[in-house]
Amino acid sequence: MLSKSQQSLIKSLQLKKFRKAHGLFIAEGLKCITEFQKANYTLEKVFYVPDKSSKMNNFSENEKHQPVSSEELKKISALKQPQQALALFKTPFLGEPKLADLKGNFTLVLDEVQDPGNLGTILRTADWFGLRHVICSTHTADVYNPKVIQASMGSLAHIQVSYQDLPTWLPKIPLPKFGMLLQGESIASAHFGKEALLILGNEGQGIRAEVQALLNQEITIPRFGNAESLNVAIAAAILCAQVRL
Amino acid sequence: MLSKSQQSLIKSLQLKKFRKAHGLFIAEGLKCITEFQKANYTLEKVFYVPDKSSKMNNFSENEKHQPVSSEELKKISALKQPQQALALFKTPFLGEPKLADLKGNFTLVLDEVQDPGNLGTILRTADWFGLRHVICSTHTADVYNPKVIQASMGSLAHIQVSYQDLPTWLPKIPLPKFGMLLQGESIASAHFGKEALLILGNEGQGIRAEVQALLNQEITIPRFGNAESLNVAIAAAILCAQVRL
Repeated sequence: MLSKSQQSLIKSLQLKKFRKAHGLFIAEGLKCITEFQKANYTLEKVFYVPDKSSKMNNFSENEKHQPVSSEELKKISALKQPQQALALFKTPFLGEPKLADLKGNFTLVLDEVQDPGNLGTILRTADWFGLRHVICSTHTADVYNPKVIQASMGSLAHIQVSYQDLPTWLPKIPLPKFGMLLQGESIASAHFGKEALLILGNEGQGIRAEVQALLNQEITIPRFGNAESLNVAIAAAILCAQVRL
Repeated sequence: MLSKSQQSLIKSLQLKKFRKAHGLFIAEGLKCITEFQKANYTLEKVFYVPDKSSKMNNFSENEKHQPVSSEELKKISALKQPQQALALFKTPFLGEPKLADLKGNFTLVLDEVQDPGNLGTILRTADWFGLRHVICSTHTADVYNPKVIQASMGSLAHIQVSYQDLPTWLPKIPLPKFGMLLQGESIASAHFGKEALLILGNEGQGIRAEVQALLNQEITIPRFGNAESLNVAIAAAILCAQVRL
């Protein structure tokens, strides 16, 4: 049984201000929930539809595991096709990454990326390519937005995300800073070395001028056809593949 | 003034069966509309909100150019933030591409890609990298779905799309067939040459077994981290960049 207050709590978590107020975020689907559990996120509560399949063995009714009907799950799910479980996890404290954590790897830095689907896809891609950190500018989409978590397919659990004021944070980091623009050196000829910050900008505006001023090198993905630009998640993926392969 | 029958026609075009029945599709936004006009698509009608800016100079009231108010545009737009114009174009006949058209270039082949956003993003990326053709399997999302057109950002106007029954079409095409799978040769070491079909599969199921049986080579994007898979539009983009750069 799902109480009215539980329903309204869960619905409220679609909005950032309530996620912040409650210190909770939503993860839907067994795969995604399992990834957060494996990564030692603190489970507040899971609502699950009991069945006899082995994949539901992890859940049995207790203080944190609450069985619900399919109809009840539908009411609280943001998905068109609700999966079998919806969990609330505690939002971890997103501290500033130490320089030592960033050294020896590539780190994506997102300057005001707005679309939650793009952010989630970027996390999934970063995870595939073995990046450990993604740094977001202050006004980049909220990583605990349910659409981000959905698009990240559980990868948020594997990536350390932190929000920084880029114009003040970037100068403190003594690593090469490559910025993706519509002009610059081709990513095919640029020398990325073994460690760097890879900076991508907003969907419409690109990288802000004050962040561009802090770049060591402007890079670009050469164009062969007629499209005006590439989607930011696409550009991030091509860049990750380029530095890894 | 927008008539009731115009409103209901435009709303019906959100659905494939009505697009097929009327032979029309919707393009929103000046940029997108201009791209279809430049590519010689037949304009049926454009609904535009008049203003004094130079970018609206192309439109003056006549049989095909109908001024509407912002409120009227809002009623017929599928966008959260409607742009200044919405056009109806005639759906062109999507013929089978000739072998000569495919030779000397790379062609993306999509096996049952379902998500309209993914399909649109793939068209935009293919356009950026100068591909001229995208072949879709019979049950791939409809390229005239407004979400596809939106995500393609006008690139559908630059790309020839055709729908084919892949198990019968592929054997007729004497070009190397590379299929993206979770195993296979790394795209970094595969030899793509100057012309090939690059085949990607459904979001959840990948390439169907009967299509896999027709491949010359299985290829994969090497994984360095923990994500289970890559989004299909991301995989397509990384592959396009790999064969071009």
